[in-house]
Amino acid sequence: MNPHIQPVQIYYEDTDHSGVVYHANYLRYFERAREHLLGVPELVRLWKEDGIGFVVYQANMKFREGAVFGDSLEIRTVVRRASAYRLVFQQDVWRPGGSKVMVEGEVHLCCVDRQQQLIALPAGVLAMLAHRFPEDGSPPAPR
Amino acid sequence: MNPHIQPVQIYYEDTDHSGVVYHANYLRYFERAREHLLGVPELVRLWKEDGIGFVVYQANMKFREGAVFGDSLEIRTVVRRASAYRLVFQQDVWRPGGSKVMVEGEVHLCCVDRQQQLIALPAGVLAMLAHRFPEDGSPPAPR
Amino acid sequence: MNPHIQPVQIYYEDTDHSGVVYHANYLRYFERAREHLLGVPELVRLWKEDGIGFVVYQANMKFREGAVFGDSLEIRTVVRRASAYRLVFQQDVWRPGGSKVMVEGEVHLCCVDRQQQLIALPAGVLAMLAHRFPEDGSPPAPR
Amino acid sequence: MNPHIQPVQIYYEDTDHSGVVYHANYLRYFERAREHLLGVPELVRLWKEDGIGFVVYQANMKFREGAVFGDSLEIRTVVRRASAYRLVFQQDVWRPGGSKVMVEGEVHLCCVDRQQQLIALPAGVLAMLAHRFPEDGSPPAPR
Repeated sequence: MNPHIQPVQIYYEDTDHSGVVYHANYLRYFERAREHLLGVPELVRLWKEDGIGFVVYQANMKFREGAVFGDSLEIRTVVRRASAYRLVFQQDVWRPGGSKVMVEGEVHLCCVDRQQQLIALPAGVLAMLAHRFPEDGSPPAPR
Repeated sequence: MNPHIQPVQIYYEDTDHSGVVYHANYLRYFERAREHLLGVPELVRLWKEDGIGFVVYQANMKFREGAVFGDSLEIRTVVRRASAYRLVFQQDVWRPGGSKVMVEGEVHLCCVDRQQQLIALPAGVLAMLAHRFPEDGSPPAPR
Repeated sequence: MNPHIQPVQIYYEDTDHSGVVYHANYLRYFERAREHLLGVPELVRLWKEDGIGFVVYQANMKFREGAVFGDSLEIRTVVRRASAYRLVFQQDVWRPGGSKVMVEGEVHLCCVDRQQQLIALPAGVLAMLAHRFPEDGSPPAPR
Repeated sequence: MNPHIQPVQIYYEDTDHSGVVYHANYLRYFERAREHLLGVPELVRLWKEDGIGFVVYQANMKFREGAVFGDSLEIRTVVRRASAYRLVFQQDVWRPGGSKVMVEGEVHLCCVDRQQQLIALPAGVLAMLAHRFPEDGSPPAPR
């Protein structure tokens, strides 16, 4: 599958006094990537009009190499529908052109309504993802 | 006036790769101090029952000395009512027992309703502050 | 084993616009708990004198209930030595007196030297942990 | 003067439970803009080769309108040399095509050496800025 690519620039705010990026920040980068993959305007519309929000249910990370100030990274994301209620995002951090993954992540997302109750994944989101990440691994048809 | 004292511990998350606390974080410490000064349960009650929130209208800071990992700091806060709509908090960062201020801050707060419209400061908050920081500078009567 | 208890107060800075604590922040709370468990002055000493730092190698989290503004939480931590190079911290988020865990976490820590190369866990840290979390599950001897 | 324009996207991580961007985060956006204006590779080089870092000495902000999740903002920055030791950045937050400034900021920067001692601004940085923001207000010559 063709991953979604999200560029991330590392600023002072991202690092800690050990000289590398503070580990929790990778979850922020993963979230930025997911928002662009799902589409920010659609997320805003779902939230405002339909009262639907995405919540992280599970997150697993392995840290193999620390990024440093000034790095230009990319988050490579693929996603699959694990059930009617859950999306699983595989999200990895790379330097563009790098030979090894720096951080490996897996993030499980569910949807909740305005009362924070679990609901099924919206059909529109599933249709978009089925188009973007076809199950047979072939790239999506050109638009 | 007897300042309100808020202890703050400096963790990895607070520092950046230059070795000192990232400058924006002092605004977070100031906010923590204001919440404890105003009273967290009362802030929760104002928000939920009365639909009243506090917003920062203005913030000014001077950075004189950088704090480092492992520091135990204190935020010293005094507050005055600048108008029916505005509180001004003088908030300074010190090492306990230190001889010089590390960061000087001044933060102006207003209140807004659920539509983010400006409203007058709540009477209960003003009464509490008048008791805690009496205008003649004498300490509040013992409880 | 008697867990280490770290109190955490939830401020504005901790929440996001969905109304609950932003998921990545739990990693920050876990880190604060680990620093107090390991001892902040000892961590500072290891870093400055011995050039030894702790890095997160792996982190897994399950999010079961979102915390909200004004919550007073506690992080309950137990730790075991998984190898000569790795500590595994089980870190869970509870409301004090609550009946259900809110967030479950598992964080793996290694040590690195000044060149960010993996080194064995320091003997002093292992001795402290063996005393604090005895392997037979009995509480540490009173001091 | 032609301001430097830095785009900023507002994600979940940027907001707080009141529904708008957490006030301290604007300082992070200002810093991102300054790093791109000064040039990230040059900042990395100054830090690694010359041991020169930039520190914030003073920051003043006025908050006029809160940004929300999904907003695409821009940071408009102009800078002047206030002395041999100090740069003053005027940094304002706008929605592209908006009619009113949302946040007004002024940030004073100094340079320090590896011992965190104040040093004069590097000649190369001053030359770059003099070219980018000519004092007579005319735009820089095309490259």
